[in-house]
Amino acid sequence: MSLLVVGSIVLDTIKTPFGKKEEILGGSASYFSLSASLFFSPKIVGVVGSDFPHIFLNIFKERGIDTEGVKVEEGRTFRWHGSYGKNPNIRKTLKTELNVFANFDPLLPISYKDSTFVFLANIQPDLQRKVMNQIKSPKLVAMDTMNHWIKGCPEKVLSLLKDVDLIFLNDEEAYLLTKKRNFLDSCEKIVEMGPKFVVFKKGEHGVSVISKDGKIFSLPAYPLKTVKDPTGAGDSFAGAFMGYLAKEGNIDWERIKKGAVWGTIVASFTVEEFGVEKLLTIKKSDLEERFERFKEIVSI
Amino acid sequence: MSLLVVGSIVLDTIKTPFGKKEEILGGSASYFSLSASLFFSPKIVGVVGSDFPHIFLNIFKERGIDTEGVKVEEGRTFRWHGSYGKNPNIRKTLKTELNVFANFDPLLPISYKDSTFVFLANIQPDLQRKVMNQIKSPKLVAMDTMNHWIKGCPEKVLSLLKDVDLIFLNDEEAYLLTKKRNFLDSCEKIVEMGPKFVVFKKGEHGVSVISKDGKIFSLPAYPLKTVKDPTGAGDSFAGAFMGYLAKEGNIDWERIKKGAVWGTIVASFTVEEFGVEKLLTIKKSDLEERFERFKEIVSI
Repeated sequence: MSLLVVGSIVLDTIKTPFGKKEEILGGSASYFSLSASLFFSPKIVGVVGSDFPHIFLNIFKERGIDTEGVKVEEGRTFRWHGSYGKNPNIRKTLKTELNVFANFDPLLPISYKDSTFVFLANIQPDLQRKVMNQIKSPKLVAMDTMNHWIKGCPEKVLSLLKDVDLIFLNDEEAYLLTKKRNFLDSCEKIVEMGPKFVVFKKGEHGVSVISKDGKIFSLPAYPLKTVKDPTGAGDSFAGAFMGYLAKEGNIDWERIKKGAVWGTIVASFTVEEFGVEKLLTIKKSDLEERFERFKEIVSI
Repeated sequence: MSLLVVGSIVLDTIKTPFGKKEEILGGSASYFSLSASLFFSPKIVGVVGSDFPHIFLNIFKERGIDTEGVKVEEGRTFRWHGSYGKNPNIRKTLKTELNVFANFDPLLPISYKDSTFVFLANIQPDLQRKVMNQIKSPKLVAMDTMNHWIKGCPEKVLSLLKDVDLIFLNDEEAYLLTKKRNFLDSCEKIVEMGPKFVVFKKGEHGVSVISKDGKIFSLPAYPLKTVKDPTGAGDSFAGAFMGYLAKEGNIDWERIKKGAVWGTIVASFTVEEFGVEKLLTIKKSDLEERFERFKEIVSI
């Protein structure tokens, strides 16, 4: 098995009621790969500028993440400034500087082309398509997207949906895609559009997974007292979900469900500290302990 | 065991995107007792006007609900007009006519005073206190309340909280009581105020139960395609929860959890039709079938 992620690698400046951090490691590919690496080491496709700190590349390497697909381009790395108030569900983007990411052209190293599990993080749909086209025979292709693309180029998102196996989305995105307010209606319409699975993310309210053959799995979120920085929760979820599946090597309903549980657990750790900090310090035993605690919390 | 509910009995006029129903049976005591009666027949304390349709009283009686405590006063019954738009979570009150309910004085029949399980539905805290004072030695007293009372007479709500065993509330009410935005923080503060259990209702996002000794149980909602009329979901939940506990006769964490599951199941049926309609037609086998389906949906 092998796991590939294409997405952004960003220097984030984040302010929350718990403090402010400047130019920390962020971006969908970073959160995804560090989270996935707790289960299975992924390969990253991305681009950074010549100013990108070596220590961040080393962080990836130390965790066994393959960075051959990370291009270093002359210029500045993608930067994002954001803030959250008391309600961690409301994110305010203060500044986005795409920099070298503006001309990102995802060309896969030869060793990446036989990847079996693929995550197309939330980037422009043409780039997602371009990566997908370079993979020879994937077992599972999953995508993320956002309002911006669904509104701006719906035909491209819909065309991708036909060809992927799984999509991660939230209620707003699902509504934009289907015009259905009811989550079941909306997920049923999405599986009709192509994917075998819809992972419907409800943030602090948990997650539901719907399969094309009518199965449903619902989980509340892991109850947390402290959410220091919600950035990267969704990509951490996806990373643990896909990392677990890649480790298992097979895709069936029980594994999809367990992937969603691991996604919930890892995302719950991520948001307890700023950026990827917690992802770098959690131990296998922390994960397992929280998994058991969560099982207790949700078991009927 | 015996189960008592004090609350409102109302003639509701409700408009939703699925239609309009006029002067149908409603009110917290009606939803609670019809829901509870699926598990254990309760006794109602309430008041109606001389115009209250006999068929509604007969509905209670046919389900084994004790109506000795329902006073019929000269005058008109409590009436409520409300509407919902596409979002079933947003309720608009168009008219409230308290009528005979304005002078409601809950005096318990002698046979009610040894009730073991007591539900103080959302009515004025002085009336809740008055009912509680008439019960000799209850095993479990549970209360509901609302923003109106928490804002209007917080000292009365807080005084009741000291003496009840369990409170049902939603996030807005929990925030008003504790000023804590985080649900765990807020529930922990509430158990410090008195009750052994907090049942934190999140509507379409499910429910969590927190115990004074630090236990947590979380459930997503039962996934529904159709919500015709959300009125009474909370009181149906409480009715099934308390009805199940009264049937069991004992209170322990496993039963509290199972009560929350039954509450979820019955409330999911209630909202599929207008008013109490579905509560009158569901069969034991429907409940059990949905219970098993729900177990599948949430089992890790």
